[in-house]
Amino acid sequence: MKLQRWLPCLDWAATYDRVTAGKDGLAAVIVTLMLIPQSLAYAMLAGLPPITGLYASIAPLFLYAIFGSSRTLAVGPVAVISLMTAAALGPLFAAESAAYIGAAMLLAALSGLILLLMALLRLGFLANFLSHPVISGFISASGLLIALSQFKHILGVKADGQTVSQLLPSLAEQIPYVNFPTLLIGGLSLLFLQLSRTHLKGWLLQLGCTPVWADSLTKMGPVVTIIVSVVVVTLGNLESSGVQVVGAIPEGLPVLRLPTLDWQLAMQLLPAALLISLVGFVESVSVAQTLAAKRRERIDPDQELVGLGAANIAAAVSGGFPITGGFSRSIVNFDAGARTPMAGVLTAIGIAVTALFFTPLFHNLPHAVLAATIIVAVLSLVDLGSLKRTWRFSKQDFFAQAATIFGVLFMGVEIGIIMGVSLSLLLFLWRTSRPHIAVVGQLPGSEHFRNIERFNVVQSEQVVSLRVDESLYFPNARYLEESITRLMVDYPNCQHLVLMCSGVNLIDASALDSLEAITERLTAAGIQLHLSEVKGPVMDQLHRSEFLQHFGGQVFVSQYAAMQALDPLSVAQAQAT
Amino acid sequence: MKLQRWLPCLDWAATYDRVTAGKDGLAAVIVTLMLIPQSLAYAMLAGLPPITGLYASIAPLFLYAIFGSSRTLAVGPVAVISLMTAAALGPLFAAESAAYIGAAMLLAALSGLILLLMALLRLGFLANFLSHPVISGFISASGLLIALSQFKHILGVKADGQTVSQLLPSLAEQIPYVNFPTLLIGGLSLLFLQLSRTHLKGWLLQLGCTPVWADSLTKMGPVVTIIVSVVVVTLGNLESSGVQVVGAIPEGLPVLRLPTLDWQLAMQLLPAALLISLVGFVESVSVAQTLAAKRRERIDPDQELVGLGAANIAAAVSGGFPITGGFSRSIVNFDAGARTPMAGVLTAIGIAVTALFFTPLFHNLPHAVLAATIIVAVLSLVDLGSLKRTWRFSKQDFFAQAATIFGVLFMGVEIGIIMGVSLSLLLFLWRTSRPHIAVVGQLPGSEHFRNIERFNVVQSEQVVSLRVDESLYFPNARYLEESITRLMVDYPNCQHLVLMCSGVNLIDASALDSLEAITERLTAAGIQLHLSEVKGPVMDQLHRSEFLQHFGGQVFVSQYAAMQALDPLSVAQAQAT
Repeated sequence: MKLQRWLPCLDWAATYDRVTAGKDGLAAVIVTLMLIPQSLAYAMLAGLPPITGLYASIAPLFLYAIFGSSRTLAVGPVAVISLMTAAALGPLFAAESAAYIGAAMLLAALSGLILLLMALLRLGFLANFLSHPVISGFISASGLLIALSQFKHILGVKADGQTVSQLLPSLAEQIPYVNFPTLLIGGLSLLFLQLSRTHLKGWLLQLGCTPVWADSLTKMGPVVTIIVSVVVVTLGNLESSGVQVVGAIPEGLPVLRLPTLDWQLAMQLLPAALLISLVGFVESVSVAQTLAAKRRERIDPDQELVGLGAANIAAAVSGGFPITGGFSRSIVNFDAGARTPMAGVLTAIGIAVTALFFTPLFHNLPHAVLAATIIVAVLSLVDLGSLKRTWRFSKQDFFAQAATIFGVLFMGVEIGIIMGVSLSLLLFLWRTSRPHIAVVGQLPGSEHFRNIERFNVVQSEQVVSLRVDESLYFPNARYLEESITRLMVDYPNCQHLVLMCSGVNLIDASALDSLEAITERLTAAGIQLHLSEVKGPVMDQLHRSEFLQHFGGQVFVSQYAAMQALDPLSVAQAQAT
Repeated sequence: MKLQRWLPCLDWAATYDRVTAGKDGLAAVIVTLMLIPQSLAYAMLAGLPPITGLYASIAPLFLYAIFGSSRTLAVGPVAVISLMTAAALGPLFAAESAAYIGAAMLLAALSGLILLLMALLRLGFLANFLSHPVISGFISASGLLIALSQFKHILGVKADGQTVSQLLPSLAEQIPYVNFPTLLIGGLSLLFLQLSRTHLKGWLLQLGCTPVWADSLTKMGPVVTIIVSVVVVTLGNLESSGVQVVGAIPEGLPVLRLPTLDWQLAMQLLPAALLISLVGFVESVSVAQTLAAKRRERIDPDQELVGLGAANIAAAVSGGFPITGGFSRSIVNFDAGARTPMAGVLTAIGIAVTALFFTPLFHNLPHAVLAATIIVAVLSLVDLGSLKRTWRFSKQDFFAQAATIFGVLFMGVEIGIIMGVSLSLLLFLWRTSRPHIAVVGQLPGSEHFRNIERFNVVQSEQVVSLRVDESLYFPNARYLEESITRLMVDYPNCQHLVLMCSGVNLIDASALDSLEAITERLTAAGIQLHLSEVKGPVMDQLHRSEFLQHFGGQVFVSQYAAMQALDPLSVAQAQAT
């Protein structure tokens, strides 16, 4: 049982049969064909040689299959994580240099260790720091930034920069040096890929294709683009016309070796690794959960940390870079009928065969085509309409989202996400720090007590009853003190204050101190504090302190019982009404 | 009315009369006598010339009297803030140097500006970041650290360090060089001050003193110590025996001038200024609130930001250093009968007169006596028993408090408070991220629905009802998704899921996304989602999104209505039981 918890693969391996294998095999073929161009492209986006993309799509898939809890998640290089890798390493080393490759491996190792550590310490909840509007803003802004950064490959020029304000002028300067054959290839690829994404399926259906074929052919868009472009470049000898191509890729499987451990560099990369781990984990878990729910399967987020951690360490020791579960790839895997993580193993074998035998075929693959693949993929993730929806729904969430987008576009990916997270935490704390507090009175003819501002209720002269709709803990402890101090000024005849605790699920040490301060102040002003409707666990907690011995008041089972004891005349009046 | 809000002094100035003036005057005399040794001592603690302590106790008191909202708060140099000043400036400049003095003024200016900015942007809630256990741990640990750092003055040696692990070995090394006359003066002062704090009052009462006299004489302990020590040092010519004394203090009032604006230094000091502002504000407001409540007066925390901000800027332009409201000083002021901030103005005049005419009297005041004053004052703030109480009451709070104490003692004051705040925020987020979620069933013979694990209730076969005892927002959005996914596995026959929202006070954009994801997953699994008991404001919020159009379920007024509509048989069965 214990082993099975740590090795989810034991769940399905025992009953694995030929029928399932057939389904997994078919899905693996489709995902492999999709993953090859994506791997090469995202390696380029990360500033790495294309072959590292293939490397990052072999060993990690095996490891995730063993340790991951999702049946259908397809892991590998993804756009946003590759961008974050480039943002972390770009300022330190020359792209595609040996030092850059080594640092990318180190970054994957750090990210893997962080994920495993989070699993060990049960820190998966840290992902909650990333609210949905921040994540969505981050992905949209990253998509725009990635598309812009890849535009140089479409134009066939050199341009550099980490932000929009660096990239745009750098591109503009290069306009006179555009390479027209490259632009033609890039532009046509963009057009074809976009059309195949949006219109091809409809056209094929009109031509009489069966839906299954139409769907499969549509997904082959990137592969077709690659094949056609390689043929065109080879036949036209376009490399000599200045079209940048992938060039010679070493054949064979990656050599397993540990990344060089440079402590100073590791410390420098730690913040980036932490952000990469969190973003990757959040993205991956939400995809995995969506897919699992469709078949009433379960995802264990802590186990996902183990699976992704192991996969990243596998990437680190096999010449790869940080990876995570991909959105579109997993959906393709699921829709193609994958049943178990064996589909991932088969995909890994497919990629390994490619790395072993077929890399010479990619020699003449133009950078422009890879860039077009990236641009079309990431622009589909951009959802600026979400800003408008968020604005309508919640202003606080809107500000966090807008800050993230602005930060990513104009100040860098890491600063952007940190701005978004900080702002949403601040606004969250601000919101929690002022809970709803209502003075309540008795509803005539009942034993119920409701807000005096919303209901026509009977209020006692000497007894003020206060309902707090929130647990009492440090973000609102001081607010409670202030509210009660204000109340004492508003009700000069008050002799008893009853705190109705029906909404209080927890009291922490700060709130306990506040309650003691409140008691002291009330006593000094001649008012006695009481509690009513205190829940069981909260009462247990109060018993572990000395508050109940000191505070001098009573704890009533219900607000009604409190009023009966403290002001029976008012109760009688309310019931007579 | 508008002006009165920003100038609380208009409240009391209009009706100020001779009787009140008499009371304020008496309190001012007592506070002045208490403040003189404290000012000199805390200036020494902050690493500044003693005179700056007097400077910091003149102009700020005027400004606070105009802008502060507390009637009886006594502002000026305090121990913890002086320690933080020393921690910020000690590593940068030589103590008492002109550069150090200038930087202390700049630090006060920054702190004042931060407080005013917080008032302007209504950021007073930021003080909630500092939970009570963190503050209390911080003050205890600071007290120990201050006492240890002052011990060199008692021994008459030189020792340096910012943490216990630096101070202890540094002191131990110096043992052979102890100056015995200094040790005698310091030791006797410590003994006398401690006894006058703990026993003198009782002895005086036994000797037949009236309580008022006994009380007043007790408070004169530090003044008596100073006078006696100055006389002894002068008569015995102890300065030539190596007893360190305050020495020549320039007579006269501080010259008003702006601190030199060094941008780079300002940026460097900003984090320290932020922490000083927050800690000072929290300490000051809690004292002010305690005192105000005793007379049913009101404190406006935002106005306190203005008052303390203005006071710190006054300190900055008159050669002082960061200040705030002092705990013991304010209580003395209150107990001595102060009625309005005019007592503060009169105290400031008393200090100004001292600075003008009496500074030569302090020439022979030994550092050891000032150190003894500080040690006795700060050790009374140390409350390590609080650790035990916190442990019993809440483990999470304990860890935050222990981290703060450890950090302050062994890693430095700033790191300590940052560790405490980060840990309490993390633990808070962890706690909020897993709200109480209960599956509910109908209590037989009633319309109430309660937790199936605690009550003997009737549960429907096809309809699962879930009560979430927390607002739905980003810290728990993902947990809700996970809980519902788990539930779907546990209830394979479920056709309808009713989310009972009686405890939901807010839904943010993350939770809305989660609700949409939940709906999608439930629909894919053939389950329909419904809501019940949604509060008015939450309903308004949902209407601003498109969720209600999409989700396909119904919103029921009550859980009972939901069950009547979805499974009338189960309801009938529950009512028949």
